[in-house]
Amino acid sequence: MSETYTASITAPVNIATLKYWGKRDTSLNLPTNSSISVTLDQSDLKTTTSAMTCSSFTKDRLWLNGEEDLQLSESKRLTQVLANLRLKRKEKEAKDASLTKISSWFIHIVSINNFPTAAGLASSAAGFAALVACVAKLLQLDDDMTELSKIARQGSGSACRSLFGGFVAWEMGEKSDGSDSKAVEVAPLEHWPQMKACVLVACADKKDVSSTSGMQLTVKTSDLFQKRITEVVPERFEQMKKSIMDRDFELFAELTMKDSNSFHATCLDSYPPIFYMNDTSRKVVRLVHTINAFYGRTIVAYTFDAGPNAVLYYLEENEEKLMSFIYAMFKDLSGWESKYNGEQLSKFLKNFEEQKLLDTLSLDMDIVKGCSRVILTRVGPGPLDTDDVLINQEGLPKFTK
Amino acid sequence: MSETYTASITAPVNIATLKYWGKRDTSLNLPTNSSISVTLDQSDLKTTTSAMTCSSFTKDRLWLNGEEDLQLSESKRLTQVLANLRLKRKEKEAKDASLTKISSWFIHIVSINNFPTAAGLASSAAGFAALVACVAKLLQLDDDMTELSKIARQGSGSACRSLFGGFVAWEMGEKSDGSDSKAVEVAPLEHWPQMKACVLVACADKKDVSSTSGMQLTVKTSDLFQKRITEVVPERFEQMKKSIMDRDFELFAELTMKDSNSFHATCLDSYPPIFYMNDTSRKVVRLVHTINAFYGRTIVAYTFDAGPNAVLYYLEENEEKLMSFIYAMFKDLSGWESKYNGEQLSKFLKNFEEQKLLDTLSLDMDIVKGCSRVILTRVGPGPLDTDDVLINQEGLPKFTK
Repeated sequence: MSETYTASITAPVNIATLKYWGKRDTSLNLPTNSSISVTLDQSDLKTTTSAMTCSSFTKDRLWLNGEEDLQLSESKRLTQVLANLRLKRKEKEAKDASLTKISSWFIHIVSINNFPTAAGLASSAAGFAALVACVAKLLQLDDDMTELSKIARQGSGSACRSLFGGFVAWEMGEKSDGSDSKAVEVAPLEHWPQMKACVLVACADKKDVSSTSGMQLTVKTSDLFQKRITEVVPERFEQMKKSIMDRDFELFAELTMKDSNSFHATCLDSYPPIFYMNDTSRKVVRLVHTINAFYGRTIVAYTFDAGPNAVLYYLEENEEKLMSFIYAMFKDLSGWESKYNGEQLSKFLKNFEEQKLLDTLSLDMDIVKGCSRVILTRVGPGPLDTDDVLINQEGLPKFTK
Repeated sequence: MSETYTASITAPVNIATLKYWGKRDTSLNLPTNSSISVTLDQSDLKTTTSAMTCSSFTKDRLWLNGEEDLQLSESKRLTQVLANLRLKRKEKEAKDASLTKISSWFIHIVSINNFPTAAGLASSAAGFAALVACVAKLLQLDDDMTELSKIARQGSGSACRSLFGGFVAWEMGEKSDGSDSKAVEVAPLEHWPQMKACVLVACADKKDVSSTSGMQLTVKTSDLFQKRITEVVPERFEQMKKSIMDRDFELFAELTMKDSNSFHATCLDSYPPIFYMNDTSRKVVRLVHTINAFYGRTIVAYTFDAGPNAVLYYLEENEEKLMSFIYAMFKDLSGWESKYNGEQLSKFLKNFEEQKLLDTLSLDMDIVKGCSRVILTRVGPGPLDTDDVLINQEGLPKFTK
C-alpha cells in the first residue's frame, strides 16, 4: 500500500451571543456585521474528525455520522476549503523540497458529532472547524487559528469562531477578498471559566427557512436591518467585548438577550417574515425575565439561534438559584442525572417549592411539553488533538451506520 | 322630573393597516408616527352608545356592557374627554344665550359592544369614538369629525380613526398641544367598497402586556424603533395613501403585511421583549403567503394588532379564491353560515379539494385549533345615528347583566 498520512482532532460548538446574520459576500461568507460567541465544552458537544491522505486515493471523500455525504463532498464550499488548505501546503512544499508533495493527493475525511445533528445546535460550525483544523494538522501547516479561521469561514461562517476556546469574536473586516474577516480570541477559557450554559432543546418544528437563505432574505427585504448592522451591532460589539473583559455578567447577559431579540426582530421584519422562535421559545424568554425579576438581578441570559432551542448562559455561582427554577420546570427531560446527584436535584426542587410559596410567580409549567432534552455544559477550549481515530487503514470509516 | 337630553349613536371598529405604536406624549395621546386604518362594517362589529344629561344628575356615570365601570368613570382619560366636549358646549352657550346651559350638567353614558370585548378587537377604539360622537350629539356641537377626533384621541389613541368610515389616516401632527394630531379621511367607503375583511379570532392566550404600557416600553428600549418611526413609516404612510387612492390592492396588501411585521419586530426588539403573535398567528402568516404564492399574485393581506388575532384584507372579486382555502381550513369555526349559503360553502370546499390535487401545498390543517371564531366583514361607514336607545328615562341602562 502507498504511503499515508492521518490526523484526528475534535472541535467544539459555539453559540453566538452577538449574532451573525447577513452576508455581504455569499461566496466568501463575508458577514454584514461582526459577532461574538462562547465556545462550549467538548465533553458535552463536539465533532470528532479524522482525515487521511494517500497518493492512491482517487477523489476527496467525506463521511458524516457514518454515511458518505456526496452532496457536501462535491459542494463548492468544501472544494473551496480544501483548495485553500492545499494551497498553503503547496507554498510550504515550494519552500522546502524535502517535504512530500501531499498537496496534490486526495483526502478522505470521517466526521462524527456526539450530539444529534437535527437538534439545530450549530453542527455545521463545529463540523467545518474540525475539518479545517484536522486537515491543517494532516498537511502539517504552520498557520495559526486566526489564519485558519479565514478558511473555515468559507465552509460555514460561524465555523471560524469554533477554532478558539473561551470567548471569541469574528471581526467582519472590510476587504473584498475577505483577508481581514477572521476569528480572534476575546478572552481564553481561563479568563472566565465560571460561565456555564444550559441548552433547552425544543421539540423539532419544521424549520422556517435555512439560515443561509434566511439571512439573505433579511439583507434584501428588512427595512430595520440596516439600522442593526450599521449602528446597533457595532456599538454592542464593543460593549460585549468589554463586559467579557470585565467579567460583568449582568451587562453581558443584557447585551446577549437584546441581541438575540434584535436578530429575531429583523427576521420578523423580512418579507415574507421569518420565524425561528416558537411559543415555547417565547415562554422561555418570559421565564428568564421572571427568574431575573425574582432574584432582583440578572443571573441568566437567553439566546436563540435560527431555531427554537434556547441557550441559557449563567455563572456557576448562581447555578443553584437558576436550577431551582429550571430543574423544577424541566425535570421530566433527560440530561439532568449526568450532571447532578440526587441530593442536588432534591435541593433544587425544595428551593422551588419554597419560592412558590412566595406567590410572586405565575409560571407556565406546561413549558416542558415543548422541549425534548436539556444539555448542561459550560465554556470550553478550542480544537483538541485526539487519539480517537475514526478512519481505518484503508481510508474508510471505522464505524458506519 | 328635571329636563333631560338624550342622544344615541353607533360607532365602528377600525383595524390599522399602518400601525400606531408609540406615544410622544402619554397624557395627550400624541403618537410617534402617523397611521392608517380601514373602518369595519357596523353590521358586524359596532359599539352602541346612549348618553343622557339632566340637571339633577349628581355625577358622570358610565355603564359598559350592562355593568357600571367605576374605574373608567373616574379615569383621567374619560374626565379629560368629557371636559373637552363640555368646553366646546360652553363656548357655544357663551355665544348664544338662548341655549340651555347643559355644559354644567352631569352625563350618564350607556355603551354596549355587539362583539366580545375580550376578543381583542379594538373595543376601546370603537368605544371612545362612540362616546365622543354621542356626547357631541347630546351637547349639539357643530364640530366636524376631524375636530372631534382630537378629543377622541385623548380617550384612546386609535379611537380618533373610528370617527370616519372607509379609509382613515391619523396624522401625527407636530405641535405639543396636539391641536394638529387628528384623523382625516383618506378615501370614503364608496371609493373602494370592494374591500373585505376576515377576522380569525385566536384562542385567547394571556396577553403579554397591555398596548399602553407595551408601546412605551418599545419607545424606551427598542434600538430599531427610531428607524421605524423616522424613516420606515413616513415613507410607507405616503405609499399606502397612494395605494388606496389608486385602488392598488397588491401594493396596499404588501405595505399592510410589512407594516404589521415591522410593528411586531419592534415589539420583539423591546426589552424585555413583547410578543403578541403566537404560533397560530405565525401559521396564518405562512398560510397567507402560501395562498398568494399559489395564485401567483397578492390577493390577501394579514395584519395583527397587539394580540394574536389575524385580520385578513381582500377584495370581493377574490373572495372565492381566498375562501376556497380559508373556509376549507377553518370550517369548524362559527361565523360562516351568516354570510354564505350551503351552495357557496360547498363550492369553496370543492375548489380546495381540486387545488390540493395540484400537490403544491403543504398546509397545516391544525391551524384551526388555535382559533375560536371567524368574523366576516368589510369596509364600512363612520358613526351612525341610531334609534336603539340604551338608556331609560331615569338615566339608567335599559339592560343590565
